[in-house]
Amino acid sequence: MQHQGPMNAAGKAGTRIRDMDLLFNPRSIAFVGATEFSLKWGFLVLNNLLAGGYRGKIYPVNPGRQSVMGMPAYPSVREVPGEVDLAVFTVPASQVLRAMDDCAAKGVRAALVITAGFRELGGENEDLERELVKRARAAGMVLAGPNGQGICCPANRLFPWMPLFFPPDGPISFVSQSGNVLNMLISAAYRAGSGVAKAVSSGNEADLRMEDYLAYFAEDPATEVIAAYSEGTPDGRRFFETVREVSKRKPVILMKGGRTSSGTAAARSHTGAMAVSDDLYAAACRQAGVIRARSADEAGILAASFYERPLPRGRRVGIVTGGGGLGVICADLCSDAGLEVVSLSRATLESIGKRLPPWWVPANPIDLVAGLDFSVTLPIIETLMRSGEVDSIIFTFVGVIRDPAVRTPLDPHRGMDLQEMWHQVSSGFVSRIPELYGPMRELGVPLFVVSNLASSRSDKGIPATREGNGVTVYSDLETACRAAAVMADYAAWRRLHS
Amino acid sequence: MQHQGPMNAAGKAGTRIRDMDLLFNPRSIAFVGATEFSLKWGFLVLNNLLAGGYRGKIYPVNPGRQSVMGMPAYPSVREVPGEVDLAVFTVPASQVLRAMDDCAAKGVRAALVITAGFRELGGENEDLERELVKRARAAGMVLAGPNGQGICCPANRLFPWMPLFFPPDGPISFVSQSGNVLNMLISAAYRAGSGVAKAVSSGNEADLRMEDYLAYFAEDPATEVIAAYSEGTPDGRRFFETVREVSKRKPVILMKGGRTSSGTAAARSHTGAMAVSDDLYAAACRQAGVIRARSADEAGILAASFYERPLPRGRRVGIVTGGGGLGVICADLCSDAGLEVVSLSRATLESIGKRLPPWWVPANPIDLVAGLDFSVTLPIIETLMRSGEVDSIIFTFVGVIRDPAVRTPLDPHRGMDLQEMWHQVSSGFVSRIPELYGPMRELGVPLFVVSNLASSRSDKGIPATREGNGVTVYSDLETACRAAAVMADYAAWRRLHS
Repeated sequence: MQHQGPMNAAGKAGTRIRDMDLLFNPRSIAFVGATEFSLKWGFLVLNNLLAGGYRGKIYPVNPGRQSVMGMPAYPSVREVPGEVDLAVFTVPASQVLRAMDDCAAKGVRAALVITAGFRELGGENEDLERELVKRARAAGMVLAGPNGQGICCPANRLFPWMPLFFPPDGPISFVSQSGNVLNMLISAAYRAGSGVAKAVSSGNEADLRMEDYLAYFAEDPATEVIAAYSEGTPDGRRFFETVREVSKRKPVILMKGGRTSSGTAAARSHTGAMAVSDDLYAAACRQAGVIRARSADEAGILAASFYERPLPRGRRVGIVTGGGGLGVICADLCSDAGLEVVSLSRATLESIGKRLPPWWVPANPIDLVAGLDFSVTLPIIETLMRSGEVDSIIFTFVGVIRDPAVRTPLDPHRGMDLQEMWHQVSSGFVSRIPELYGPMRELGVPLFVVSNLASSRSDKGIPATREGNGVTVYSDLETACRAAAVMADYAAWRRLHS
Repeated sequence: MQHQGPMNAAGKAGTRIRDMDLLFNPRSIAFVGATEFSLKWGFLVLNNLLAGGYRGKIYPVNPGRQSVMGMPAYPSVREVPGEVDLAVFTVPASQVLRAMDDCAAKGVRAALVITAGFRELGGENEDLERELVKRARAAGMVLAGPNGQGICCPANRLFPWMPLFFPPDGPISFVSQSGNVLNMLISAAYRAGSGVAKAVSSGNEADLRMEDYLAYFAEDPATEVIAAYSEGTPDGRRFFETVREVSKRKPVILMKGGRTSSGTAAARSHTGAMAVSDDLYAAACRQAGVIRARSADEAGILAASFYERPLPRGRRVGIVTGGGGLGVICADLCSDAGLEVVSLSRATLESIGKRLPPWWVPANPIDLVAGLDFSVTLPIIETLMRSGEVDSIIFTFVGVIRDPAVRTPLDPHRGMDLQEMWHQVSSGFVSRIPELYGPMRELGVPLFVVSNLASSRSDKGIPATREGNGVTVYSDLETACRAAAVMADYAAWRRLHS
């Protein structure tokens, strides 16, 4: 198994980070609570571990069974014959302490407790959680959870988690205080073309807290961008001090739940987070260089946006549009996001105008009055990139989506179905966008392509995954404008803080 | 052909509205500029008219051809043998005046001028547009355009327009100053389950302006909701006076382009609209009962939302959620939108709690800690509807999407693929939602269902169209919360103004 983590960190913090590495890079897993009863998490999570293709050793632990899912089972972790890097817990809360003692005796260094029924219920269950953490720490263990949905590391085909969902390997790491929201973050990033380095549903954060995962991701060479969902933290100072250091190395995109009094009240019964003024929170994020997303979908897409593009040098934006109305809306959204729709020099406009019909009105947004003739579009975008007059470029167009329900007459001259012809023109253009990626990286001017083609699931590869042609196509203008703007924000923060 | 329009309007305005009816209900069409050259609109629009299945009479007009696309062609509209209800123009601007005179001589009462090259180019082309309108009005004609992409009326299978796109019949009428944005509005409403009554790309609005179409839609019995995209109007007073009257009868959802100085500058070169302070514009919208959308997608989805639901009586919202984090985010979004996440009475919470496990925390949002057991969900939602304590309900859950790339082991007991099993559970639930539509309408408490299943195109029927089981599933929480809020806003306005 290829190693996927920051093994080189040194010192005391380094030891903890090395042990966190066992969560994501275990050579062997004891599964405490393995069962074949299909409505229990002890079956569903184990099933995902198997279905995901984990290639390390799995030891099912269940005192009542000789074997589980065809693998020999053991009465406790103590009885497991080989070394155990990671213990996964799905047994009821009442059995967790004894299983933890077994892990300690066995010398296990990392525990993933999926089991619920701790602090979130209050009363003596809170005491149980405190005791669990005490014993884990006494044994020198790191503990993820309890009450999370699990973790994943696709490079290791490691999916000890609840959802029946196996995202591909990629550059983004995720941490979330909600399992459902974790899935939303990952799905959005995946649709935008990026896979997962590591992901964790941090649950009650009894031992490892969000800032610990962020510090770990900062060290992890497989992680290039970080996306997080938080409902709050018991130690705001530690959280923001950590995230400020992390932001100096990698972008952190954060979605915050519990911004309003209604949301905070709901968060109190979910993760027990405390009320913080959202204005103060927003100010702390800005100071720490954190990019704050407005929704889980936006967080995932912004994270993917950072991955494949250079950071822009400033806020000047050029808009290239396949329609006047789209250009107007895009200019509004750029203004909203704090970007400047700059006037272009006469020389640049003349150079662009040579490729457009005489009735073109020379201005930014550049309205490609020529419609679907994409042969002029690539050179126009490249001219704009090379002008030195814009820091990022948004290109938006409406493509023709192949709809099997539509039957159109054949083009009488070309003998070809018109729908197919226009579809090939518009999606064929997307396939040529990588030609602009060389200049984009050379010149440091990120390009954002927005099209309805992105929301067409029938078009395989649009939005393309990293494995495909590497092009992310945005399905809505607002997210693309926000991506250009937050990348400019982050670039400005990095220039001040690096 | 079934008649689709308001023929009963009387008087002078009535005459004009009767003539506008010819745009959408023509028994015969003269197509001025019909051609077989596949890169001309004279071919593409005619092709759509044929492919869309129009059942009236079509007379291609082209002085250089004996026939076009297998139909006999005529040298001018004067030579057409039968009566002509509507003339569609795609000839170059320089030929439009002469063709207009031919139409006047023939007694044509309605013209759709798709041809571009008028006011948008300035100079003598502005004079040409003024002369065109003068001649049309002298002949007692209504004129749509010029420089629009055309119109549609799916009930009549009438698609004399540019896009290769044939949306189904439905309750929403659309008017847009941008063709591309018109397509975005219609696509969004269609994905949300609603088809089109009538749609028009109003172009330069040389004769018929947005407010004329809105007044026409107010009278049209096939139109139940109206969605519009505007970049501004030369006569704000007339526009808002009209829309205020329309809003008393039907909801008008408006997306405004050119809110910011950059957007206004772009709009100037697109439709020549003038700058208006956006705060003033927003105030005028509020006074006129107009629902302002934040994006074209939102406008289309809000329009569809109004169609299938009763108007809520107030702002109290109940949230039912399949996950704690979703509930937190939903509560935030409801607060943002001006809804009140109310506390529920002990009696209501007890009645709901009977169906949930003992570790449920009784509160609004109602977190269905039971996960995917949807058998309890319908009765819980109905209990909430009948409580009299909420005015609208948002239900959100994450469903399992069938992914053919995922192969999972069989459930050892049920002998069934797990993915298939969970998918059936979650999508099967959606198929049962119509059981709640009776109580929803009886009690006047609209329900909004939000799930990732809505963004899965592989699930045919989710979001269901009107023709299917009638359920709209929202793919993002924010739009659902906004829909509940703007319906409450509109209901409050109607109570004051009817």
